[in-house]
Amino acid sequence: MVRAPISPATAADLWRTAHALADVARPVTLASFRQPDLQADNKDANGFDPVTVADRAAEAAMRDTLARLRPQDAVLGEEAGATPGTSGLTWVLDPIDGTRAYLSGTPTWGVLIGLADAQGPILGIVDQPFIGERFCGGLGTAHVTGPQGKQRLATRPARALSQSVVFTTFPEIGTHAERQAFERVSAQARLTRYGMDCYAYALLASGQIDLVIEAGLHSYDVMAPIAVIEAAGGIVTNWQGGPAHHGGQVIAAANASVHAEALAFLAR
Amino acid sequence: MVRAPISPATAADLWRTAHALADVARPVTLASFRQPDLQADNKDANGFDPVTVADRAAEAAMRDTLARLRPQDAVLGEEAGATPGTSGLTWVLDPIDGTRAYLSGTPTWGVLIGLADAQGPILGIVDQPFIGERFCGGLGTAHVTGPQGKQRLATRPARALSQSVVFTTFPEIGTHAERQAFERVSAQARLTRYGMDCYAYALLASGQIDLVIEAGLHSYDVMAPIAVIEAAGGIVTNWQGGPAHHGGQVIAAANASVHAEALAFLAR
Repeated sequence: MVRAPISPATAADLWRTAHALADVARPVTLASFRQPDLQADNKDANGFDPVTVADRAAEAAMRDTLARLRPQDAVLGEEAGATPGTSGLTWVLDPIDGTRAYLSGTPTWGVLIGLADAQGPILGIVDQPFIGERFCGGLGTAHVTGPQGKQRLATRPARALSQSVVFTTFPEIGTHAERQAFERVSAQARLTRYGMDCYAYALLASGQIDLVIEAGLHSYDVMAPIAVIEAAGGIVTNWQGGPAHHGGQVIAAANASVHAEALAFLAR
Repeated sequence: MVRAPISPATAADLWRTAHALADVARPVTLASFRQPDLQADNKDANGFDPVTVADRAAEAAMRDTLARLRPQDAVLGEEAGATPGTSGLTWVLDPIDGTRAYLSGTPTWGVLIGLADAQGPILGIVDQPFIGERFCGGLGTAHVTGPQGKQRLATRPARALSQSVVFTTFPEIGTHAERQAFERVSAQARLTRYGMDCYAYALLASGQIDLVIEAGLHSYDVMAPIAVIEAAGGIVTNWQGGPAHHGGQVIAAANASVHAEALAFLAR
């Protein structure tokens, strides 16, 4: 199925909306960040899946903005679920990706704003409010704004897996078998780094690293990162090489070469 | 042995010098950060201990500044080793703590500037040039400056280990036995996070987390963090409860209670 073209006017409106969402989420998330009275509720009876007042307030603020700017679009958010629309477009929101990082004061959490149609991601923002970095990709652009100004996003040229840098949130997430698969790739890589949450996808889009490998993801964890990474020249699939925007096991790669090399070790 | 008192004028001069070192290291480290042509040499024949042109240039710039401002003091730096002095004071410099993070584009690396006498740390700075955060402690002050302005540093009040947040660079560093000891503590904690380099010590001093547990450290990895954490009310020892400023196995804790509880699990 070929995607219907999006007019320049509509593209501009969608980007304006995406930035408005990121702008409204910044003060809400920062208001509670590193505050001594910040509390977390646990959403997972069998583990620790924290949610804070900031997650809920930031998603609510973004939903209010969408209701005003683009009421025709559907919304899927981590905290408040699905709201139907009529346009065929869905905003996919994770108000705080990396709530564990947020609770620990670490600036590797981000606000994820994705836009998708039935075929997958159209545009995405990975916003880091504390550092003031915003990674944007889709509809003809791929750039970051932050402490070093505005720069184009482009993933790394191909290099051997043995020279590559791999990121994951492991060893915290994933089954035993998934961890073993990850470690087969990690054993081949030059350097493995842990625990960066969505910031790892931003580093991949920025040409800093070669691979991000995760498991147990949700649609709202990956929709925006996929848009940013693909716009920057990268590839994101599931561990079988198929579409990744529904979540699950995800591999994001800087280029087709390292993607294929890593996929072979995951599948073994 | 009681430490000779440091006059207010000398304390002011030492802090001026410490900030001058951090100021001179910022542009040098940022000039290479995230640059596509950044290369790393390997210092470890049996592994990967990277050093970049930025590590060497930042240490050289700080040594030049010290030669001008306080030629009477000794210097111990990660890259260029020991230079003797006559004052009894030694500046302990790690130009880029977290070179792996630096090579990956992650802003968890920092410039570590410690000042010590024969008894241990006197003052320290943990500087994060990309975010623009500077954590300072010692000689009567404990504060951070950064995106949210200037704030006092104070470690967390006591809470049970079962409610605590533990950080480490594990699973990358340490022997098998050290990792097992760490995992005994980690199993008791509410949340464990990985791979933050010196930024974890800054989060501890900021009251965001409860414990940092590491092994295989060098003096230049810990001298500045110890000064900052102690000034903020925390405790840093080795895994036997003795002085930690020579490196090795290090546990940094927000308070005496969680320190004692974690130490018991490390020793078991």
